[in-house]
Amino acid sequence: MISVGINGFGAIGKRVAWAVSQQDDMKLVGVAKTSPDSNARKAVDIGYGLFCADKDLDFEASKKRFADAGIKTRVLPEMFREINVIVDTSPGKVGAINKEKLYDGKDFHMIFQGGEKEKIGMSFNARANYNKALGQKSLRVVSCNTTGLLRVLKPMSELYKLKDVFVVLARRAADPKEDDKGPINSYVPTELPSHHAPDVQTVMPEIDITSFGGALPMTIMHQHSLIIETEEKPDENEIIEKLSKETRLALLGNEGKTPPSSSTVIEMARDLNITPRNDIMNIVILKDTIKTKGNKIMMMYYVHQESDAVPENIDAIRASLKKASQAESMSRTDKTLRLDLMKKKLEKYFP
Amino acid sequence: MISVGINGFGAIGKRVAWAVSQQDDMKLVGVAKTSPDSNARKAVDIGYGLFCADKDLDFEASKKRFADAGIKTRVLPEMFREINVIVDTSPGKVGAINKEKLYDGKDFHMIFQGGEKEKIGMSFNARANYNKALGQKSLRVVSCNTTGLLRVLKPMSELYKLKDVFVVLARRAADPKEDDKGPINSYVPTELPSHHAPDVQTVMPEIDITSFGGALPMTIMHQHSLIIETEEKPDENEIIEKLSKETRLALLGNEGKTPPSSSTVIEMARDLNITPRNDIMNIVILKDTIKTKGNKIMMMYYVHQESDAVPENIDAIRASLKKASQAESMSRTDKTLRLDLMKKKLEKYFP
Amino acid sequence: MISVGINGFGAIGKRVAWAVSQQDDMKLVGVAKTSPDSNARKAVDIGYGLFCADKDLDFEASKKRFADAGIKTRVLPEMFREINVIVDTSPGKVGAINKEKLYDGKDFHMIFQGGEKEKIGMSFNARANYNKALGQKSLRVVSCNTTGLLRVLKPMSELYKLKDVFVVLARRAADPKEDDKGPINSYVPTELPSHHAPDVQTVMPEIDITSFGGALPMTIMHQHSLIIETEEKPDENEIIEKLSKETRLALLGNEGKTPPSSSTVIEMARDLNITPRNDIMNIVILKDTIKTKGNKIMMMYYVHQESDAVPENIDAIRASLKKASQAESMSRTDKTLRLDLMKKKLEKYFP
Amino acid sequence: MISVGINGFGAIGKRVAWAVSQQDDMKLVGVAKTSPDSNARKAVDIGYGLFCADKDLDFEASKKRFADAGIKTRVLPEMFREINVIVDTSPGKVGAINKEKLYDGKDFHMIFQGGEKEKIGMSFNARANYNKALGQKSLRVVSCNTTGLLRVLKPMSELYKLKDVFVVLARRAADPKEDDKGPINSYVPTELPSHHAPDVQTVMPEIDITSFGGALPMTIMHQHSLIIETEEKPDENEIIEKLSKETRLALLGNEGKTPPSSSTVIEMARDLNITPRNDIMNIVILKDTIKTKGNKIMMMYYVHQESDAVPENIDAIRASLKKASQAESMSRTDKTLRLDLMKKKLEKYFP
Repeated sequence: MISVGINGFGAIGKRVAWAVSQQDDMKLVGVAKTSPDSNARKAVDIGYGLFCADKDLDFEASKKRFADAGIKTRVLPEMFREINVIVDTSPGKVGAINKEKLYDGKDFHMIFQGGEKEKIGMSFNARANYNKALGQKSLRVVSCNTTGLLRVLKPMSELYKLKDVFVVLARRAADPKEDDKGPINSYVPTELPSHHAPDVQTVMPEIDITSFGGALPMTIMHQHSLIIETEEKPDENEIIEKLSKETRLALLGNEGKTPPSSSTVIEMARDLNITPRNDIMNIVILKDTIKTKGNKIMMMYYVHQESDAVPENIDAIRASLKKASQAESMSRTDKTLRLDLMKKKLEKYFP
Repeated sequence: MISVGINGFGAIGKRVAWAVSQQDDMKLVGVAKTSPDSNARKAVDIGYGLFCADKDLDFEASKKRFADAGIKTRVLPEMFREINVIVDTSPGKVGAINKEKLYDGKDFHMIFQGGEKEKIGMSFNARANYNKALGQKSLRVVSCNTTGLLRVLKPMSELYKLKDVFVVLARRAADPKEDDKGPINSYVPTELPSHHAPDVQTVMPEIDITSFGGALPMTIMHQHSLIIETEEKPDENEIIEKLSKETRLALLGNEGKTPPSSSTVIEMARDLNITPRNDIMNIVILKDTIKTKGNKIMMMYYVHQESDAVPENIDAIRASLKKASQAESMSRTDKTLRLDLMKKKLEKYFP
Repeated sequence: MISVGINGFGAIGKRVAWAVSQQDDMKLVGVAKTSPDSNARKAVDIGYGLFCADKDLDFEASKKRFADAGIKTRVLPEMFREINVIVDTSPGKVGAINKEKLYDGKDFHMIFQGGEKEKIGMSFNARANYNKALGQKSLRVVSCNTTGLLRVLKPMSELYKLKDVFVVLARRAADPKEDDKGPINSYVPTELPSHHAPDVQTVMPEIDITSFGGALPMTIMHQHSLIIETEEKPDENEIIEKLSKETRLALLGNEGKTPPSSSTVIEMARDLNITPRNDIMNIVILKDTIKTKGNKIMMMYYVHQESDAVPENIDAIRASLKKASQAESMSRTDKTLRLDLMKKKLEKYFP
Repeated sequence: MISVGINGFGAIGKRVAWAVSQQDDMKLVGVAKTSPDSNARKAVDIGYGLFCADKDLDFEASKKRFADAGIKTRVLPEMFREINVIVDTSPGKVGAINKEKLYDGKDFHMIFQGGEKEKIGMSFNARANYNKALGQKSLRVVSCNTTGLLRVLKPMSELYKLKDVFVVLARRAADPKEDDKGPINSYVPTELPSHHAPDVQTVMPEIDITSFGGALPMTIMHQHSLIIETEEKPDENEIIEKLSKETRLALLGNEGKTPPSSSTVIEMARDLNITPRNDIMNIVILKDTIKTKGNKIMMMYYVHQESDAVPENIDAIRASLKKASQAESMSRTDKTLRLDLMKKKLEKYFP
């Protein structure tokens, strides 16, 4: 039984907490928060152990804040004694501070998120480099966009030798709950060059990839347009056959019509009610956009930015602690988080 | 046991089907659809009986269409023999055609939606006129906005004599799945005067109400700003106390901060995972906006346009067939559709 | 000849600079900026005198920054010697600092914007309190929303005794150029109570007004829904007749159809090409929404947030320096900034 | 002197009318409309001759409709006798009907828009195939997106041999005035394959190009991401130098920061006030996105969908009637429509 602690209970933390609770080889020791707000009450109501944290490491002051709000907690350092691994889901760059000031030198292993810099730990994607991660004390689960790219590029690289990859990103500019972020009516280019391609290379250094694009006024999913140049002449059916086998990808048609919009796909997840929050942890490939032209391949897909890296956190835990092989871990994760069912249903209803 | 058939399986039909399936005094005979698309397969997968309908009433042709798509159905008239009541959730104005051509003269009762004209049946709201609906062969569940207004105005009218009501609507211009409707960047006034006030009066003719407003580029919830003039001098605490007792209303604060945005409320529903599709069937009143000034009351609230009229459909079934008293029906509906739990949780997490 | 200096060259500063340049009784000494960016070059190209400012009042350092960027400037204090009045258009709250540290004790008069606190100077609206402003050394032109309200309420108050006013605001959440502000898909309530009503009362303390509402994902215009209770029984035609005489209001129909959307009105301004940036400095009243009910009046209108307070800045200059009567100043401003032509054209093309 | 008639007075018609009025070798005989609405009054006010058209070719009935609305017109066939060329700007596919029923067999030449099918006339782009168009009786000015692509690809093809071109389109889903079109919060894929690539090939059949992408909730500009494979090894500076010479392209930096958003660029056009409606007829290339990698070139740019094909209509007129050489016509158009000044200013203020 792996004892897991989670530091942070925001968009990712709450999802990873749920995901851990679905595993029969894991036990959630608890989640840590800095402020005694509604999310703290929610954690208690769900039955999660609650630990108080503090930006200035004054844990007793934090404990008092929670107590004053009527919430009983233990202090974060108490969590450390009971866990085999911590999943740090604090906001970008805070993980690095936590590592230095709180985690380093302790026995437990560490899983960080993609908002942290590369050096914090080995960049991880379950499909692409699980075996390299075995036993690593610190792993960094790459971001939502990078996870999407790796899930597609790894199987593609097994099929063909990839010579040159270009990805154009149409990023959702804010999550549904982020009601202060824009733009409202604009195309906002990303930093140049975009960080996504180098991030892919932290996991698959052999991939020659370039990324660019912009942020757009939508909240529900990122969209990628991919152009891959291969050594061999690629074949559409072969590609579809290969990608179809991947549980973490779902290949959607639309009954011969134009591929479904991102809101149509999310509406299906709402109808299916398979996952909490109607998350789609699988990458949603628009099957009819998979086209070849000479030795180039095109493809469009959607990335559910809030949830697609959640399964990778679960696998990262097992890899880091050497508790399962890649196939075993991914298969367990896919079943327990229902990526297999989601894939099956989405593919059935978008034939 | 009430045998229920549903004609239509769109935004409302799929929700009413689920709601019926949660009642222990009801049995869902099946749902009817005109085209053998993914939604038809979904209905079959869920285990709903599937009946084929046809715009030109050529049911055998429709049956063949479904058969050609590999979906076995029975024809709509077969449903008629097995049901006590039909809930018609076809698109606006089609219900009237169905009534005339298919339903009239049959034994079963009929529940229509607010998109139909007033004359199709008695306008219904569970809180406002359940008793008048007892035994009515045809009922019309009023629209999402009207349902919201009635749920607030009925208890308010029990507290004070309402002299004059004004409601300013900020309408969501499209549902999440409607990816072709706008505006993208504009305020679009509604028809003038707006139909909402007269619709309220089909249920509560004694209310002197005026409605106006516009449609805006958002998909998740309508918003109402209400100004009520009363005969007596109103009292904020009295109002809050009165409305707090209503299960179909939820009164949300925000820990002393500005009231929560509509996306923040929907995000909470996603976290709570109490209802399918994270629907919020309760009207979400922003508690801190309840203010009095002389003999006037102000108030702002959100209406989840996709789902708030669903409980009313369940109550309309019972009222029409005289199967339960108002208190009994509403209480059962609130429990089975979890409006009571949703209210409790929302109010807890938005203190 | 009034010598005018402008401190700040953003959304308001650039418009006031243009507006000053259109007056034959004013001379633009120049505009002041803190950074040598593209806007600085634009100011030079237009032919405006350019003065360098600095947050820490280190003007020589600022001058060097500009010089390094190849832009020749004079320092802000040099402007002070040549002007009769300064229009401060710096970001909210910075004006107060400027007043204390730079302007107080100097000979020139000061015009501030609505983002400053009330105490910075007498709140000003040309239509509502020009005469009280005569000779005032410091004036504060109220914000876009307040300006809109006052332009409507002042004439209304001349027609009827106003007992009680409610305004529901649908605020545009960001200006067209603000590409980082949201929400993208949400209704975000404003602070409670909203500051607009008290701001109206800084100019018309006799008005009993309450304001509330929210921000929405649109960039082009605010929208107000007004409910006014009067002592006397109001008459629609009388109201229309009264408001029609106001040059700073435009009363738009839509050939008997639903009132025009805000984007339709802006498109008309683009077609007309009467003002730079296609600004609509007039308040756009939707004529067909002017309705009475007993002793209450309803009304909807649009406020062009970027520009409607620009004419008030011009009038504030004249009032402060006692250079013209109210009628004379407003008439000159309306002609030179073409509010008269814009009103005429809009009313003609939206009959 | 070329006598020009325009059939249609919508988004394109009104812009072409203005553009014709700026030419000293052209005379605008008038514009034709089917309904006596505000746009008709606007045309009269501007001083354009007004001709009445009719869908069923009942011109006298149309004339009466206009007369009843107080607008004096001549009938469309009267226009035909006075013109050398007609620019048909009617909605997509209506041009083909007009050609067959009204224009064919007449003496005047015809210019159609990109919404018409290819066979209506030779596809035209001033930069790419002016000389082939000389004397052609019927020309089709390709659509906004295709015009953008051709303006970039033609000079690129002069610099390098283009082997393979991919363009990913982020389309604005609606024009600013189209207040009923969505999506509000979704990515909606375009038809597959998109029509843009084949449309480019109607002008430059030698270009091997593939296009795909989607529509997004924005109204102000399309965005293209281009990947070009060349025979030779390309050089960034060489590309920038080549494209910089093109008046109909503007190459924008952003003072070393991330490239400007589309709304920032449009705001600059508002400030500059060079064109009516603040149109940017130049294609706006984001200079810092021009990158090479091996023998591939990347590039991002914005296309102002409302106006970029307007200059091409002017050139198409001259080409069709053999009234000027390519260089002469383009240069005159660029000066009179101020593309030269717009380019100069945009490049100066986005260094």
